[in-house]
Amino acid sequence: MRAEIVTIGTELLLGQIVDTNAAYLARILSAVGYDAHFRQTVGDNYQRAVEAVSLALGRSDVVLVSGGLGPTEDDVTREVVAGAAGVPLELSAEALDQVEAYFRRLGREMLASQRRQALVPRGSRVIPNPVGTAPGFAWEGDGRAIVALPGVPAELEAMTRSWVVPYLQERARRAGQSGVILSRVLRVTGPGEAAVEQALQDLLHGRSNPTVATYAGTGEVHVRITARAPDEQAARALLAPVEREALRRLRDAVYGFDDQTLESVVVDLLRRASARLAVAESCTGGLVGDRLTNVPGVSECLVEDLVVYSNEAKMRHLGVDARILSEHGAVSEPCALAMARGVAARAAADLGLAITGIAGPGGGTPTKPVGLVYLAVAGRGDTRVERHVFGGDRIQVKRRSAQAALDLLRRFLLEAS
Amino acid sequence: MRAEIVTIGTELLLGQIVDTNAAYLARILSAVGYDAHFRQTVGDNYQRAVEAVSLALGRSDVVLVSGGLGPTEDDVTREVVAGAAGVPLELSAEALDQVEAYFRRLGREMLASQRRQALVPRGSRVIPNPVGTAPGFAWEGDGRAIVALPGVPAELEAMTRSWVVPYLQERARRAGQSGVILSRVLRVTGPGEAAVEQALQDLLHGRSNPTVATYAGTGEVHVRITARAPDEQAARALLAPVEREALRRLRDAVYGFDDQTLESVVVDLLRRASARLAVAESCTGGLVGDRLTNVPGVSECLVEDLVVYSNEAKMRHLGVDARILSEHGAVSEPCALAMARGVAARAAADLGLAITGIAGPGGGTPTKPVGLVYLAVAGRGDTRVERHVFGGDRIQVKRRSAQAALDLLRRFLLEAS
Repeated sequence: MRAEIVTIGTELLLGQIVDTNAAYLARILSAVGYDAHFRQTVGDNYQRAVEAVSLALGRSDVVLVSGGLGPTEDDVTREVVAGAAGVPLELSAEALDQVEAYFRRLGREMLASQRRQALVPRGSRVIPNPVGTAPGFAWEGDGRAIVALPGVPAELEAMTRSWVVPYLQERARRAGQSGVILSRVLRVTGPGEAAVEQALQDLLHGRSNPTVATYAGTGEVHVRITARAPDEQAARALLAPVEREALRRLRDAVYGFDDQTLESVVVDLLRRASARLAVAESCTGGLVGDRLTNVPGVSECLVEDLVVYSNEAKMRHLGVDARILSEHGAVSEPCALAMARGVAARAAADLGLAITGIAGPGGGTPTKPVGLVYLAVAGRGDTRVERHVFGGDRIQVKRRSAQAALDLLRRFLLEAS
Repeated sequence: MRAEIVTIGTELLLGQIVDTNAAYLARILSAVGYDAHFRQTVGDNYQRAVEAVSLALGRSDVVLVSGGLGPTEDDVTREVVAGAAGVPLELSAEALDQVEAYFRRLGREMLASQRRQALVPRGSRVIPNPVGTAPGFAWEGDGRAIVALPGVPAELEAMTRSWVVPYLQERARRAGQSGVILSRVLRVTGPGEAAVEQALQDLLHGRSNPTVATYAGTGEVHVRITARAPDEQAARALLAPVEREALRRLRDAVYGFDDQTLESVVVDLLRRASARLAVAESCTGGLVGDRLTNVPGVSECLVEDLVVYSNEAKMRHLGVDARILSEHGAVSEPCALAMARGVAARAAADLGLAITGIAGPGGGTPTKPVGLVYLAVAGRGDTRVERHVFGGDRIQVKRRSAQAALDLLRRFLLEAS
């Protein structure tokens, strides 16, 4: 099956925002076994968008369109798809219900212009939007389909996961191209991409089924193993030995699989250990807490997270000894340990996690450069401390520190279990 | 002048990397006054890349191509441009000199395959690469041009700054179409995109210079005003009255301009008010602290940020009265106020900001649904409380809550100043 992505939005075309949706949708297409040969971007211009979607429709089985589904007049995607498909727009009662229900739930008044969002090209199926206003739609005709999704990444991704992926799989099955492509992702944190590549060298190259590829993320590397087979069982049988071999080599640097996040793995380990956690953050400024609280049900195991920027707050909240601060400084191994012990003791938690470092751009010295970070875990009669020097700007240092802190906690919990 | 960007690379097409070059080149085109109507991406495939470049050449004065200039066999861009232009490839002595000089400078041996990088389509000018191996080239014919640049962002950007920008300006001058395009972005938080559009209706429509457009982000809307004029001064003169009128209508819903973030504006206001802030977060879990600490120098004005998930922690750290919790619950106006007052008092800060809500997916009731959030600011003899019901999943509720909390603080500081 051939698919083509068309992203619509003047802000994309002018480079005011980077097109992350196109990359996301491209990865999804590849994961469900569709071939993508071209990608196009156009502005919020009816005529040129019709030109692009028509060109895509002429050479693809499925066209994925993102952007331009909002309530305003420069949101032209409904008209564009109708124009390219050669059908009129109709008000969908189902879509209108969804838009109205969204506003009812928020207790906000629906503007008349919002009704526009319930228009779909004749012959379309409505795609529910679980996180925003604008529903999407999938138009079908002549054995081809155009799937339209909103441009807000959180909405596009939620709708793709819940609706578009099964839809694409079903279409491929109906077209008799029901071979499956199955992927397994090993999520690795700690070693960089070059090190992962070196460890897996012979698995990465000269292998066509399953294929193995690595992708770098922030503070992590993903190893994707992809098998193509007539059915799921056969695909799994191809995946399994390669996955086992990759795991054997990467060991506990693999923190999780597929869509798991590091924070969800950590919360899971805390639950299994019946351990209650308290966190003290300095340079990460709340980012560790933010990530942990993205996991539903975290309140069972997170007692509190204290963002203690100043020395004074470190002493008052965590009982860090003034001598440690004067002798070693706030960015030091003894301070990280005292913070981890202090936050756990004061919160009556089983475990304490602490992060202290210099995120920059200011504050660095020759002996304590920007990017220097100490991490500590303490609890249940044991401690761990780590020293890192991270590259990148302030936000990169914060992200890498939070990632390394969660990973330190993960390895601590694994060893204790 | 019309220009079109074509990016070449299988890793772009499959979404393995996000196409930041396309956004960079698009901003450059807009800055030098070229119109871009379409953008295309293709893989490392000769036939399809020729198809894309030919399509672009047929509808543009200049085509910018990036990627595929390396030494390996899947670097097809030289052949592709020659194919689309209908001319043969030739070894350029000038390009070969540059490639050889690069290797000499590094003291490395040049592989035979590197000679490929000195091939250019007949009739091309060579574009020096100050930071890498592969020179670029600009082919010209029939009044049109194709400019080819490497895909490595640092190389592409250096060559664009030093060579491509003057080249494009010179071409526009020769065509008698010199000019600049200038944009101003108003960043709005609070009202949704439909409400902003309604307020600006007559500015948004039927206007060609400057143009006005709105774009939705998470919890914010951007209004972009774009003017085209012979020079920068004339462009500014076109922008100013429209910007003033938009500001008059949107008033303090406009929190900032261009690349400013809400958190940077808040930190700036705190500094100007010489106000030290303490934050108590429940449902946002550290996200407000994370955003504030993305701003360099925040330590001057952020005393601490306490993530207090449990009732027990709210009492212990903030002194919230047990009766408030039993009578009104943790997600209530009295609790939000007590949290804001408590965190400020205990930290001896000038201002306290508090967020308490139900991020979901569990924990909602008919009277207190998922998405219900109370925000409070207290300090300097004044308080503000707000109640919101946010839509979306757990992460969306957290994001929208953090955005609204920072905005509440911003408006509090504006009124106090």
